[in-house]
Amino acid sequence: MSKILIDEPEPRKEKVAIVGAGLVGCLAALSFARLGYKVTLYEYRDDPRNETTVDRNLRSINLAVSDRGIRALNAVDLEMSIRVLKNILPMRGRMIHDVDGHQTSMKYGLHNEAINSIDRAYLNIELLNELDRHKNIKVNYGLKLMKMDFSGKNGNPRIYFEKTKKVANTLEENAIRTFEYNFVIGADGAYSATRFQLQKFVRMDFSQEYMDCCYIELYIPPGASKKYKFQLHPNRLHIWPRNKFMLIALPNFDGSFTSTFFGPWDLTESLDTREKVIDFFQTNFKDAVDLIGLEQVVEAFLTHPKCSLVCTSCFPYNYKGKCIIVGDAAHSMVPFYGQGMNCGFEDVRVLVELVKKHEYELESAFNEYSVTRQQDLDAIITLARNNYTEMSHNVNTTRYAVRKKMDAAMHLIFGDKWLPLYTMVSFRGDIRYSDCIKRSKVQGWLLSQLELGVYGLGAWLAFKAIRAVVRDR
Amino acid sequence: MSKILIDEPEPRKEKVAIVGAGLVGCLAALSFARLGYKVTLYEYRDDPRNETTVDRNLRSINLAVSDRGIRALNAVDLEMSIRVLKNILPMRGRMIHDVDGHQTSMKYGLHNEAINSIDRAYLNIELLNELDRHKNIKVNYGLKLMKMDFSGKNGNPRIYFEKTKKVANTLEENAIRTFEYNFVIGADGAYSATRFQLQKFVRMDFSQEYMDCCYIELYIPPGASKKYKFQLHPNRLHIWPRNKFMLIALPNFDGSFTSTFFGPWDLTESLDTREKVIDFFQTNFKDAVDLIGLEQVVEAFLTHPKCSLVCTSCFPYNYKGKCIIVGDAAHSMVPFYGQGMNCGFEDVRVLVELVKKHEYELESAFNEYSVTRQQDLDAIITLARNNYTEMSHNVNTTRYAVRKKMDAAMHLIFGDKWLPLYTMVSFRGDIRYSDCIKRSKVQGWLLSQLELGVYGLGAWLAFKAIRAVVRDR
Repeated sequence: MSKILIDEPEPRKEKVAIVGAGLVGCLAALSFARLGYKVTLYEYRDDPRNETTVDRNLRSINLAVSDRGIRALNAVDLEMSIRVLKNILPMRGRMIHDVDGHQTSMKYGLHNEAINSIDRAYLNIELLNELDRHKNIKVNYGLKLMKMDFSGKNGNPRIYFEKTKKVANTLEENAIRTFEYNFVIGADGAYSATRFQLQKFVRMDFSQEYMDCCYIELYIPPGASKKYKFQLHPNRLHIWPRNKFMLIALPNFDGSFTSTFFGPWDLTESLDTREKVIDFFQTNFKDAVDLIGLEQVVEAFLTHPKCSLVCTSCFPYNYKGKCIIVGDAAHSMVPFYGQGMNCGFEDVRVLVELVKKHEYELESAFNEYSVTRQQDLDAIITLARNNYTEMSHNVNTTRYAVRKKMDAAMHLIFGDKWLPLYTMVSFRGDIRYSDCIKRSKVQGWLLSQLELGVYGLGAWLAFKAIRAVVRDR
Repeated sequence: MSKILIDEPEPRKEKVAIVGAGLVGCLAALSFARLGYKVTLYEYRDDPRNETTVDRNLRSINLAVSDRGIRALNAVDLEMSIRVLKNILPMRGRMIHDVDGHQTSMKYGLHNEAINSIDRAYLNIELLNELDRHKNIKVNYGLKLMKMDFSGKNGNPRIYFEKTKKVANTLEENAIRTFEYNFVIGADGAYSATRFQLQKFVRMDFSQEYMDCCYIELYIPPGASKKYKFQLHPNRLHIWPRNKFMLIALPNFDGSFTSTFFGPWDLTESLDTREKVIDFFQTNFKDAVDLIGLEQVVEAFLTHPKCSLVCTSCFPYNYKGKCIIVGDAAHSMVPFYGQGMNCGFEDVRVLVELVKKHEYELESAFNEYSVTRQQDLDAIITLARNNYTEMSHNVNTTRYAVRKKMDAAMHLIFGDKWLPLYTMVSFRGDIRYSDCIKRSKVQGWLLSQLELGVYGLGAWLAFKAIRAVVRDR
């Protein structure tokens, strides 16, 4: 595309390397370019816009952009944010599908708020297009980070890349390229090479934990009707909760839905023949099978990659003012709160605010980021893990429905002083994740007291009624 | 040395690669050679026996070989075990040094049992000498594991090594060597390259956590007397417990002691001038300074490496019957229970027993190892971490001394049914680590009840006495 260059800020002399041109890496590039830094982005894959066919890696769960993600985009540039998000599809609630195919809608927010479905690959391309508008952002594809040390001038990072394109199956004949920068931002995902290198210089606590949950991508095509393409309600996140496993579906703007099956590894791997898959899906997801197509279900289940879900966390995130990791590189979470990307975007916003607050003195900014951000990241990782049970089981229970109604009622009474947890996390980016958990704990305790009160009242009335009956005899 | 070949078992056709020729790697090589496998050991360092000067990396804490380590050595070959351990120095208890230089001895065992001090480098060389006695063990030095996959015949592991000797500061011009084996044993320490490669094929939970504790090696030379070289009691593990920090010293058979300072990072790094170090050591470790020499303390503190302590744990430890990790590669712990090497040796003994039990069907053996060994490794990692407080603080308290006496008394009454925790861990390799914790919890609770009883009785008697006095007036 032709470059429509945007106004650039007063340039700074420092150069930053950003590793990873995924969603968070692109936002970091845009944000630090906006601060005036000279930005070079390194990506080990090819430019996805050069692919002749769209790269469907069949591992994607549609993203749900919510308040934190949008805030972070807006913080860089409102016009950019609008361009990038032009094709989102708002989802205003969940649509629960029971075994008989009955659908029940549950609103997410109390004021019709929405989380917004968007395809990951599409959003990534939109962000890459934005990078091209900047003079002081350069993107290098096909280079993989092999090594990083701090042997440059003033302890600056030196990074060693290997060309990925021409590399055969052995490690011989590598073409290594070495570059020096003022600082490095690692945004290279859950298996971050930057983080791995950083661990050689920082006493970094680190953990990774796999969930006993496997996911497989399925696809619900657009309907035949030309006027109305969607086969399901387009403004809902569809869930088929079946306790230990579930199916979900998120809308795409072409009328299709990206659907994902989640289940324990043992169960999923035991469904290894056409007959078993058909039997399992017809029993549990009859209405979904009708939309996906029986052959397509079988094919997807037997041939699509079975993907794992990993939670990683670490501390600290930086080495002095020389290197910092953001997004999944610092905290990969399971997708059940729809916050992975939103949280990664928020990382960048928070980091940029601290760089400004410390007047471009990076060591103080990065140190404050590590210390203050940790509790928020720990909070959202925990919330995301716990939400699997909510989605796959709790939404099916009466108690959940009752509590949700009580929760909403309390908000109507107390206003901003009482906010349901989901609202705080998804629609109130001004509240820190760690505060969401703190407030929700207090509210949860109060709700339980209320519940006890309600049950107690019920029991008392029942007792009265029985006594009245007994007396009458 | 000339090879004195030992009797070899019926050879098997399978070949195993062992990564790392440290203590656990050597024992694994000896053990699997004994089972008949063709063993190749890879070590990225040079042969330590070729070094013109002894490689003092100043990071060593003397080892304390105890029952589990000895059992594992004996299980391979009793004569070998005796050769290897000929220069151990038994430590039958702790010697507590208070600030005024008074020493108090506390026995470890109830029957004069000992843990045995030995220099790590020395033990490693003894084990390397043993390898040379075997026809079916080959050792390759100067090769570093770069990559591992399972692309060999029948999914066998292929491993890629880089020559470390000729490699300059860049990664260019690498000479890569590729080998295929039937299986690989990773014994390459806390920062295991084998484990890192394994994680690409196994959904491995993993965590690493740094303790806020730094250590620095010091040295107490032998005394001037020709007849009696030791400046401190040779059969004790010496401790200078000072709550948040401490000094320890373990004897060497040449009359010297390897001493180690442990303290929080902030404190240790704040002692950055000659004056501060002198003041700190004269205040806290007066008697030790007299033995080490003031100049030597200052030099060690300001120039020796400041080392960190990391706990790592992971699960599972194997990929099918193709690769397994043992020793620090699977579980690195802090040194405060003296169990790191003992536990690594036990890993090998347990693994070999399972290979025999499953009649050389490695996948079943490795799987059973992962599942059953995890709880024991988790147990000893926790015990080791908790023992820092015991060594640096509790040993100073009266309550600890009283409980230790009660603990010993209970053993005298109940015999094998009541064993102090330290005894189970260090002297009773027939009791699994996880069972040590379980039994100790029950005993601890009973001891607390007894304590309460004692205090209750005391209070009751005091009350009686006061009432009698009051009445008499």
